[in-house]
Amino acid sequence: MDRTRLRRKPQRGSHDRAVIDAIVDEALVCHLGFVAAHGPVVIPTTHVRCGDVLCIHGSAASAMLTSLATGIDACVTITLLDALVYARTAFHHSVNYRSVIAFGRATEITDRAGKLAALAALLDKLEPGRSQRCRPPNDKELKATSVLALPLTEASAKVRSGPPVPDDTPEDAALPYWAGVIPLVTARAAPIPAP
Amino acid sequence: MDRTRLRRKPQRGSHDRAVIDAIVDEALVCHLGFVAAHGPVVIPTTHVRCGDVLCIHGSAASAMLTSLATGIDACVTITLLDALVYARTAFHHSVNYRSVIAFGRATEITDRAGKLAALAALLDKLEPGRSQRCRPPNDKELKATSVLALPLTEASAKVRSGPPVPDDTPEDAALPYWAGVIPLVTARAAPIPAP
Repeated sequence: MDRTRLRRKPQRGSHDRAVIDAIVDEALVCHLGFVAAHGPVVIPTTHVRCGDVLCIHGSAASAMLTSLATGIDACVTITLLDALVYARTAFHHSVNYRSVIAFGRATEITDRAGKLAALAALLDKLEPGRSQRCRPPNDKELKATSVLALPLTEASAKVRSGPPVPDDTPEDAALPYWAGVIPLVTARAAPIPAP
Repeated sequence: MDRTRLRRKPQRGSHDRAVIDAIVDEALVCHLGFVAAHGPVVIPTTHVRCGDVLCIHGSAASAMLTSLATGIDACVTITLLDALVYARTAFHHSVNYRSVIAFGRATEITDRAGKLAALAALLDKLEPGRSQRCRPPNDKELKATSVLALPLTEASAKVRSGPPVPDDTPEDAALPYWAGVIPLVTARAAPIPAP
């Protein structure tokens, strides 16, 4: 587990599965890193956690999915930005965040039942029950879609929360600048029906 | 520029600098990919665009920054999630997003003026003028901080917007399911002063 050892600010880190799972489940997008012929590549994609694995999907013709399906090393990173942290000194400005980094190799889900379950879970993550409120994939659509599973076993979380760190000196503490936290909130706006 | 050629859904792609810059400027976090001894790694970090380069910063002891400063290949990916897209079929569900992928090698900004300018730009991105409303870095803090610049010259953007794609068949169009777009909005909540 050396590659999940937290080097920078280890006090912010956790290998607690409940912490990791909650971050993975709240985030709608992950960033997948792998090494292509020309070097490192990072691709954003949607995901859903199914137990111990992260499921992603896309076109069966996707270069990323076909590369990952060969079992190359991958790194998946998930980040939730919670707040801007203003301090009285430039140095102590920060952000509050919750992130997960997982290392592993993907495997393709090829059995029909497993594939349908993962695709349904992707929809139900957007809105509980959504997979029951649309036509399920037909054979042609299923064939055109690849679904991969990435293990979440080798994962760590990192979290910063709360106010800026205390000022280093009484002089800094006496500075006339505002310090505190500006929370960032993501919400769903009014739905726009399709034309 | 082969590695910025858009393979999947090239109609969503752009190499327009104004499109790329607007996405980079709006996003507060980027995901940086590089290859460590044990394989690919993706790390989230804040960033600011200074003209043609993306500036990032962190502890001078950061393993990521010291690795990147040696000039290894890097990939920086920036993603803004704008909406969930519901279709009448599972297959045509999607998300609206704006993303940028840039490939390049970082260089460390070591001159004092350049470093101070990049650090000020990082703060002013959070709030215009913020760098003037805090104590600037002193020599010790400046020494403890590394600032890197990544070129944005080899970059591409990808954007999906608008409603779900039209239904494939009259039968799909007649399905009794809701289709449309659910916008996602990120906002700043009421500031919380430090204790």
